Amino acid sequence: MKPLVLLGTGNGLDQVRESLLALDPTLTILRPDDEGAQQAEVALCWNPSAGSLGKFPDLRLIHSIAAGADQIFKDLSRPLHVPVCRIIDPDHRLGMVEYVLWGVLHYHRGFDQMLKNQAQVVWERPGQCPAKQTRVGVMGLGELGRAVAVQLSGLGFDTRGWARRPQQIGGVKTFQKAEFHEFLDGLDILVCLLPLTIETVGILGNETFAKMARGSVLINCGRGEHLQRDDLFAALDSGQLRGALLDVFEQEPLPADDTFWRHPQITVTPHIASSASYEVIAQQILENLRRLDADVPLANQVNSEQGY
Amino acid sequence: MKPLVLLGTGNGLDQVRESLLALDPTLTILRPDDEGAQQAEVALCWNPSAGSLGKFPDLRLIHSIAAGADQIFKDLSRPLHVPVCRIIDPDHRLGMVEYVLWGVLHYHRGFDQMLKNQAQVVWERPGQCPAKQTRVGVMGLGELGRAVAVQLSGLGFDTRGWARRPQQIGGVKTFQKAEFHEFLDGLDILVCLLPLTIETVGILGNETFAKMARGSVLINCGRGEHLQRDDLFAALDSGQLRGALLDVFEQEPLPADDTFWRHPQITVTPHIASSASYEVIAQQILENLRRLDADVPLANQVNSEQGY
Repeated sequence: MKPLVLLGTGNGLDQVRESLLALDPTLTILRPDDEGAQQAEVALCWNPSAGSLGKFPDLRLIHSIAAGADQIFKDLSRPLHVPVCRIIDPDHRLGMVEYVLWGVLHYHRGFDQMLKNQAQVVWERPGQCPAKQTRVGVMGLGELGRAVAVQLSGLGFDTRGWARRPQQIGGVKTFQKAEFHEFLDGLDILVCLLPLTIETVGILGNETFAKMARGSVLINCGRGEHLQRDDLFAALDSGQLRGALLDVFEQEPLPADDTFWRHPQITVTPHIASSASYEVIAQQILENLRRLDADVPLANQVNSEQGY
Repeated sequence: MKPLVLLGTGNGLDQVRESLLALDPTLTILRPDDEGAQQAEVALCWNPSAGSLGKFPDLRLIHSIAAGADQIFKDLSRPLHVPVCRIIDPDHRLGMVEYVLWGVLHYHRGFDQMLKNQAQVVWERPGQCPAKQTRVGVMGLGELGRAVAVQLSGLGFDTRGWARRPQQIGGVKTFQKAEFHEFLDGLDILVCLLPLTIETVGILGNETFAKMARGSVLINCGRGEHLQRDDLFAALDSGQLRGALLDVFEQEPLPADDTFWRHPQITVTPHIASSASYEVIAQQILENLRRLDADVPLANQVNSEQGY
């Protein structure tokens, strides 16, 4: 088989290469400057730089090494006839459920305040309300969003979901695109699990925050570009929002001088909400290499019009 | 009906009185020094002082205003023929599930480290393992412990439970009294939800910690007296334990000069893991007053030999 080429940044690509070679030592996996990389038929990508995908004339498959594919669509040199696939890992779904659950419980039970109180040596019991009185809204009801909403509902939270198309999820009040304001109305905690598309960029801004309950909370596990940062600071300053848990940023790693790091009401995590295991990533890529050779439909192919 | 008397400390007793009077304004609820309190037939208690229960010759019922009754047994003047009841609130169980879930996820996903990293402006992804590889042990399988174990197992954690008597809980490996070491062996996270009895006092000490995995975690939602504090500090210093989440203390509120407040690996919360709503407390006490009058078996009576 012709070589695979690794395109992009971060140490994830190297770990994927290692895991792939452990499963199939006959693979040739190159960096773009390596000899013979020009003949690559498959590109494995994490944040490929602009113009890089257009340099490989023999490409037959572009594979994200994660759940998100928006990072691939940013490279406008991408040959449009080449299919794009992504990773869907059941454990990865569990990881996202864990992250969001921690975040929702953190604010629902006042751990944000209690951690501050400990630093000040203050023994003060935060107000407590049952989960059924805490309104949590999940934006985006794909693989991850659905799993998160089901789990929150199972713990008794008053759970809503919002997606482009109508959906049915037991125990969850679902809203479709045009019902965005009804979905937001009075939310205590908003969880963003949207894909990044032309329609969702900047969706976490003043208009959205204003519809939520006073003193509510934002959890962003979508993409940094969903958030209008000046609007977030304004909402925290005014008290419209009480806190924000951010896992994703326009630039990652988040630069050391970014004000997100130091804001007392913002918790920053290093894009760890949901990470598939490298073993699963390698298995799914191998499976798609087999399918490519056998000329059968690929797994987890991205609809390039929707962008996810 | 003869009066009720409030015995003990904290503002909870006043809140219970208010909630009781809202449901039944005909009740007479007194403090021990009030006129007529000597004729009290029912004592509502939170940490009654030593010798106080023995001063009421007409007592027919001693009612805790919380889930725990050990605070009542500490008063050795308690007339032994008088039944002791406690509160069991389904929402209260949910509250405990929420608290423990937050704690387990906090350590399982490295939020403890990530919060420290944010303060140092460090972007570093903590090692991640699937829930099924994290061994969580729940000590105490009463109302609260069972609910916690079931929920942890549902999220995929490798969950164990330990109780005095054999128990069956789906998805949970259970151990009985004599199997304590097998229960502890290699645990990553230990959750204490035991009642405080002569057999469990001081159970969280060196011998227990030594059986757990290196770098493991303690979550104590039982009683402060379960914990041997010097052993905890030693285990944290040696790295045998990586962190502790403590909700209960021998003296509450925790004194401002207590070293727990300032230890970087200890998180202190102000005994909030599970608090029943005052409305439910009042309803359950009223129900037991009715049963007392009707001379039918009381609800949630404590077995005074077991102490819970």
